[in-house]
Amino acid sequence: MLALVPAAPAAAQAAAPHHTHHLMPVPVSLQWGTGRLRIDSTFTVAVRPQGDGRLVRAVARMTRRLEARLGVPLAKDLASDRARATLVVEADGPGQAVQTPAEDESYTLEVGATRAVLRAPTAVGALRGLETLLQLLDGDRAGFYLPTVVIRDAPRFPWRGILIDVGRHFQPIGVILRNLDAMAAVKLNVLHWHLSEDQGFRVESRRFPRLHETGSDGLYYTQDQIREVVAYARDRGIRVVPEFDMPGHSTAWFVGYPEHASAPGPYQVERRFGVFDPTFDPTREETYRFIERFIGEMAALFPDPYWHVGGDENSGVQWNESPSIRAFKAQRGIGSNEALQTYFNQRLVPILQKYRKRMVGWDEILQPGLPTTSVIQSWQGRASLDSAARRGYASILSSGYYLDHLRTAEYHYAVDPLPASSALSTEEAARVLGGEACIWGEHVGPETIDSRIWPRAAAIAERFWSPREVTDVADMYRRLAVVSAQLEESGVRHASHTDRMLRRLTGGEDIGPLAALLEVAQPVYFGERGQIQRTTQLTPLTRLVDAARPDPATRFRIGAMVDAFLTDPLHAEYRDDLARLFSWWRDLAPRIEALAGALPLAADAGPAAQALAELGAAGLEALAYLGGGVAPPEGWQARVTPLLERAERPLGLLRLPFAPALRRLVIAAGGTPARPTSP
Amino acid sequence: MLALVPAAPAAAQAAAPHHTHHLMPVPVSLQWGTGRLRIDSTFTVAVRPQGDGRLVRAVARMTRRLEARLGVPLAKDLASDRARATLVVEADGPGQAVQTPAEDESYTLEVGATRAVLRAPTAVGALRGLETLLQLLDGDRAGFYLPTVVIRDAPRFPWRGILIDVGRHFQPIGVILRNLDAMAAVKLNVLHWHLSEDQGFRVESRRFPRLHETGSDGLYYTQDQIREVVAYARDRGIRVVPEFDMPGHSTAWFVGYPEHASAPGPYQVERRFGVFDPTFDPTREETYRFIERFIGEMAALFPDPYWHVGGDENSGVQWNESPSIRAFKAQRGIGSNEALQTYFNQRLVPILQKYRKRMVGWDEILQPGLPTTSVIQSWQGRASLDSAARRGYASILSSGYYLDHLRTAEYHYAVDPLPASSALSTEEAARVLGGEACIWGEHVGPETIDSRIWPRAAAIAERFWSPREVTDVADMYRRLAVVSAQLEESGVRHASHTDRMLRRLTGGEDIGPLAALLEVAQPVYFGERGQIQRTTQLTPLTRLVDAARPDPATRFRIGAMVDAFLTDPLHAEYRDDLARLFSWWRDLAPRIEALAGALPLAADAGPAAQALAELGAAGLEALAYLGGGVAPPEGWQARVTPLLERAERPLGLLRLPFAPALRRLVIAAGGTPARPTSP
Repeated sequence: MLALVPAAPAAAQAAAPHHTHHLMPVPVSLQWGTGRLRIDSTFTVAVRPQGDGRLVRAVARMTRRLEARLGVPLAKDLASDRARATLVVEADGPGQAVQTPAEDESYTLEVGATRAVLRAPTAVGALRGLETLLQLLDGDRAGFYLPTVVIRDAPRFPWRGILIDVGRHFQPIGVILRNLDAMAAVKLNVLHWHLSEDQGFRVESRRFPRLHETGSDGLYYTQDQIREVVAYARDRGIRVVPEFDMPGHSTAWFVGYPEHASAPGPYQVERRFGVFDPTFDPTREETYRFIERFIGEMAALFPDPYWHVGGDENSGVQWNESPSIRAFKAQRGIGSNEALQTYFNQRLVPILQKYRKRMVGWDEILQPGLPTTSVIQSWQGRASLDSAARRGYASILSSGYYLDHLRTAEYHYAVDPLPASSALSTEEAARVLGGEACIWGEHVGPETIDSRIWPRAAAIAERFWSPREVTDVADMYRRLAVVSAQLEESGVRHASHTDRMLRRLTGGEDIGPLAALLEVAQPVYFGERGQIQRTTQLTPLTRLVDAARPDPATRFRIGAMVDAFLTDPLHAEYRDDLARLFSWWRDLAPRIEALAGALPLAADAGPAAQALAELGAAGLEALAYLGGGVAPPEGWQARVTPLLERAERPLGLLRLPFAPALRRLVIAAGGTPARPTSP
Repeated sequence: MLALVPAAPAAAQAAAPHHTHHLMPVPVSLQWGTGRLRIDSTFTVAVRPQGDGRLVRAVARMTRRLEARLGVPLAKDLASDRARATLVVEADGPGQAVQTPAEDESYTLEVGATRAVLRAPTAVGALRGLETLLQLLDGDRAGFYLPTVVIRDAPRFPWRGILIDVGRHFQPIGVILRNLDAMAAVKLNVLHWHLSEDQGFRVESRRFPRLHETGSDGLYYTQDQIREVVAYARDRGIRVVPEFDMPGHSTAWFVGYPEHASAPGPYQVERRFGVFDPTFDPTREETYRFIERFIGEMAALFPDPYWHVGGDENSGVQWNESPSIRAFKAQRGIGSNEALQTYFNQRLVPILQKYRKRMVGWDEILQPGLPTTSVIQSWQGRASLDSAARRGYASILSSGYYLDHLRTAEYHYAVDPLPASSALSTEEAARVLGGEACIWGEHVGPETIDSRIWPRAAAIAERFWSPREVTDVADMYRRLAVVSAQLEESGVRHASHTDRMLRRLTGGEDIGPLAALLEVAQPVYFGERGQIQRTTQLTPLTRLVDAARPDPATRFRIGAMVDAFLTDPLHAEYRDDLARLFSWWRDLAPRIEALAGALPLAADAGPAAQALAELGAAGLEALAYLGGGVAPPEGWQARVTPLLERAERPLGLLRLPFAPALRRLVIAAGGTPARPTSP
């Protein structure tokens, strides 16, 4: 099926830069030469200083990846003779003992015709440059090579993260480790680890063992595993910022320790999704003693100087209903639950300071009285980000970067923490530290998470690293296809995801028709799925919707094909490509519908298959009218308009995200009035 | 491509039993009913005894797998009311404290129209029955169901294993764990863990830390990991038999402890493959003290009552060259190196007895004087297996089950540890405990191992479990396709293997042409690859040959298509199917050759693509002659014979295993004389 959709329509090719490359994120500065540095079995690396264990390990990993790509063994040992090494890696220093946003991640990479030199002020900068080097590798009939080039590079933002929610669905350590490797490949530098939720508490606590024993269904990280993840991340220049969400989103804490909630309990691990009432009691000193002892234990596991307290979506119900909490508010003149939460946060600050942690929290903590040492993470919109920056708070943007909402890479790519239109002063703008993509866990299990993060997160990583002006969507998708394939080196399974799940779902039968459907269909958006399927933590994530991928690669390609055709409707090649595709859809639908009838887990396929057939037929008609230069017959518009409208809504648990492109085609054929449709 | 090859040609379908099922291994006795036990969200399980942790955990795992297949949540807790449970699981006892080949693995499973009852003498038997139950699950338009049936089942052989060689290439613990799950799914019960080799020593030793520190390149299992694997295996009714190969295949030991070798050293980890000279010195008492302390440490990690000492391929060179060893032999009247090795083994026996271990070793240890408590594992042929059984030794067959040789499932399936033709007496035959499939590590890395074990090992598992009479190859392949898809539940990656490696190899380009090639091509056999590529431990396993799979599913299908056509050459459907396939190959070749020219790692594809095009053209010609009833023209035979002969030899690092089927077709068309060709 994918073979029916050309990778690079002429329109997109024309937009590509003169010297095409596959770097993602795009570096600050690139000066291409005309030569090629051949890379073969004679490749060697010299490192300075040789005593930097992190740098030496990173070079060893790079060399193993390189030899896997070359298919020939490379020297296991570092070269002692710098003058003869193919690659010289020089770091001026090891980097910070505990990495912070102030870490210097810059590097320069000079590839000449006989050798390459990578220089950086820190080992972390050198790590970033090694990833660039691997992305530069190319091949021709004579073998592999690096194009000669001089690259000067540094990140635009110092805080470039992914939040992984392991509370709603646990993610085994293997999932975390392989995603750290994938993050490093696109120069992300923060794992924001959302470790507690209403639906689960995920860290072993030796001081308060009922936290993990009763709050996790047995699905938690041991302290050894936490240390392993932190060390593994540090080796890749990635900070680990833990989040223990409080005072709300905390039901799982109270299963074992109900005395710290604002109502008596008992509590059970929450299975539903949403905003729930269990909330820490901010009026009792025992609460703070508990939190202090807990943070004291955890601070020894998480060396990062930042500590995320959550603070979002406190329903206020328990606080409103508790006579003692109402009395506490009245006594202290605390006029609102927001003010009471600020009191709670003010109590947390000295505890965090004791363990040398700065507080990070969601928008909601931004209330009068919050210490300006706190960092605001905005999930509600850029307005609160800007507001925080104006009021003196460092801030991070996550609004617009919710990967679990299943929007397109293009959509996220357009969101900028500091757009050109920003009204912030230079000083205020400097407080915007960067952003984090978020993968919340409602509909994401260990089997599906990679496909919900990658490759889209690579486009967000570029937004955080590359100059603001890097915005060419067609070029982004061109490079994303290459980087997506390379990311499999790290073990992430996004690319094999759909076929793997379809094989199980079809029980060994031919997966062809369903695979073809999922080349163009994607899951419904986050909120739609919850509404339609009434999902809970216990819902198995093994249906057709889970096998589908967000923003399938064909969506953008079909759009580009349609636009290329509309630019030149008499160009036979464009028309033939589209006609083949539309015929294929029309013929495919009965085979999909047969499977949907026979396989309960694929029952969702029916409506989408029907719509695919209808769109294929409408598309063929539109091509005929446009190519033939004749107007469509009376009544065509009235017939196809409802088909198009239906195709842009949920079809079972699927969506057809290319439908707006079909609408453009039909509009051009004169069949239906325009309306806003961009996905 | 696969879609071009019908899954079940009429010929194969006709051979299938009346009531088709997907059970593998086939049970001893099946009595089908006519009803269906509906399985939906109301499914519950009752277990007796409830205190058997292993049984309860197995039921919980089964329930999670079941709900993933159903797509709906099932009760997390066991039913307290047996009368109302959908499934009742009853074990008469927990099974042996340490599982041995004497473990009773039998079970009966009765599925009625309203409930199912699984009964077994032991928890291990119940585990086997739970896997059968999951394989019985089927679906129709009304949802999921179990067909009503009464199954009585027990294994034919008590020792049904897989040897995994982690010495030549290390396999991370995740690989081992997921393969244990896959083994359990097809009722295998022994992991033979080949833990030391010339190329690596893979276990942490606290008594002799230089073993893993200097002998493993840092790639070894910690003792915690060993314990985790042993416990994980036990939970699945799988024994773990460790092998520490001695006196030969032991170079890696001597890197840290050269004083125990028969020549002074120093030693380095061996990178080449083959038989090497470093050998334990059997003449020094220090050697036995070292081995005793080592086994004492390891015996605490491996509770199994069997201990594999290896004993294979002792080159004898060091023993011949050492004056002190020659003197020792002369002094004691030891006339040969074989006799000296028996002396060595005799010294090991009391050490093993001290730790309550029975010795297992390869054929070579079967020498006069070997205690009959030893178990012989035959890799050299059934003759030595029979010889061992006649001489009173328990024995296991591995000859014919070398998965790393990359033969067909059909080939292994035909090998029987006790064929009908066996001349062993009943008493002797009882000493044949079973067999082990072996995956030796020369050409097998963590990324490729699953594809080299699965699904073929499932066919071998059936040989070890099912009655001797279960030998229908077509039916085996029919069921293997289903079981192969189900095995992905355990996380093994055999099915996603080829596409995943091709994506990286092609760097994000369309993998279609190469994927189509690898639907019909497979790697050259084990010995051929070593000869052609001169592989070492350092050779990256990332080329096209590594992306290819042994015994691709199309091989048998194409053979069946050809045979169906030859039975009835005027049947238009058969001819059309074959003609489509042959045309596709002919048209595909130029696209593959273009990629082979551009991608260094796919350079191997060229000769195979060329042969594919030639075979496609020859096949089309044969179809025309056969269907048209006219004789081929003069000279056709002389032209196609060399093409067919070339296609049955290595083409680069690939083979076209369907070529013999093409030869049958061409012979029938009158073009070329017969010769033996079965793969």
